[in-house]
Amino acid sequence: MGPRWKGKGFKAKALADPMSKIVLKLQSSLNQSNCEGLLCGSSVLLSVEAEQADLLNRSCFGVAMVTAEKDKQWFELSLEEGFYLSYALRCLRIVEDKCVKSEEQLWECMKSRNALFSYYYKAYCHLRMKNWVVMSGITYGADFVAYRHHPELVHSEYAVIVSSEEGGASNRLRVWSDVHCATRLCGGVAKTLLVLDISRNGHGADSPSCLEMYTIRERTITRWSPEQCREDHTMVESENGAKEEI
Amino acid sequence: MGPRWKGKGFKAKALADPMSKIVLKLQSSLNQSNCEGLLCGSSVLLSVEAEQADLLNRSCFGVAMVTAEKDKQWFELSLEEGFYLSYALRCLRIVEDKCVKSEEQLWECMKSRNALFSYYYKAYCHLRMKNWVVMSGITYGADFVAYRHHPELVHSEYAVIVSSEEGGASNRLRVWSDVHCATRLCGGVAKTLLVLDISRNGHGADSPSCLEMYTIRERTITRWSPEQCREDHTMVESENGAKEEI
Repeated sequence: MGPRWKGKGFKAKALADPMSKIVLKLQSSLNQSNCEGLLCGSSVLLSVEAEQADLLNRSCFGVAMVTAEKDKQWFELSLEEGFYLSYALRCLRIVEDKCVKSEEQLWECMKSRNALFSYYYKAYCHLRMKNWVVMSGITYGADFVAYRHHPELVHSEYAVIVSSEEGGASNRLRVWSDVHCATRLCGGVAKTLLVLDISRNGHGADSPSCLEMYTIRERTITRWSPEQCREDHTMVESENGAKEEI
Repeated sequence: MGPRWKGKGFKAKALADPMSKIVLKLQSSLNQSNCEGLLCGSSVLLSVEAEQADLLNRSCFGVAMVTAEKDKQWFELSLEEGFYLSYALRCLRIVEDKCVKSEEQLWECMKSRNALFSYYYKAYCHLRMKNWVVMSGITYGADFVAYRHHPELVHSEYAVIVSSEEGGASNRLRVWSDVHCATRLCGGVAKTLLVLDISRNGHGADSPSCLEMYTIRERTITRWSPEQCREDHTMVESENGAKEEI
């Protein structure tokens, strides 16, 4: 299943304005302004000028907040988004109680707010690095959804579930009924289920540098309909295009 | 969400021919013929005359099998169905290697074929005792589906997930993404998610008599749409009729 563009010419529009370049502009702009994010509960809050607000919107980081302030626009970032801008792109300093967090401190903070942060962040970062737009997948019963470009131009292509065979990691897709549930729902909303199976390879999560030692196995899972292949096997293969079928 | 009858007059038809009476007839007929089921893999196979085949079909036990035999009709029962007819209704003896299994032997066999059998059987038996027709829910990503009467007359009303807080029991609905996945899928196929939360209350599964000590908490879960209650709260309550909302 390929990308479903939302309108005519949107594919060309996306090609002319690649996500990688928008993110580079955001990175450079945040760096120039020495931007700071406030760690607040399970969010990172960010106050920016109009130009940066536009870049955050275009690159799909965070959600614009409604406030009474006229000059500044506030954004609420998820933990993964905040950490990505701070640790991977190095264009955001994150502050709590007026103290800028070091990398190690920030890592501990994130883990304290979500015990599975290292797995979710690895998945988020993995997709963002490949220039996918990654947003919450909760409305589709997934951890993330991945878009080929901005959600205004294209529907999300993948519902992403983060999985790990290591104890204590995500409890999804352990039983068949769950696998059937996820694949059937994905089929109904024209997405492909992408399972990111993360292995820490024996490395813990003591510091963010451990992330480099983690490996990811990517699997797409689609429903298998026996009727499809009764007559013409080759047709089915091209229709599904899945790496693994159940 | 009430029952969705498949045709006009089907509700009256169901009321005139209650499931409890069909099951009683089946029970009496199987008892008279000293019926035996063959334990084979994860199924119980049953060979019956035309009258009993009709009763099995009408009460929705097992699936009729295609064989070359002309006088006899073979049925394939699930482990839960076989054990229910044998242990709860006492109208089926189950045989393996030409030996009739005692209750205790049969219980051990069932557990060896499915480590979670005690939980699934308790759920199956609980619903069947209330005259629900219970069938596999795998196509809806659930453990069972429950029908008010025969599936020819009515759509299934509940997608049933068997759950337990005890270690080693079903691994479903442990994370929010799974809950969202299940409720969203149920909404899409006009079913209500029924979670049967089973507690062994400290009793193990050493013998089938333990089943009586287990308790079941029934919960229906529906999606909560904030828009629904903006103006008229009473309307929403009657529309949903759910015991618990998320």
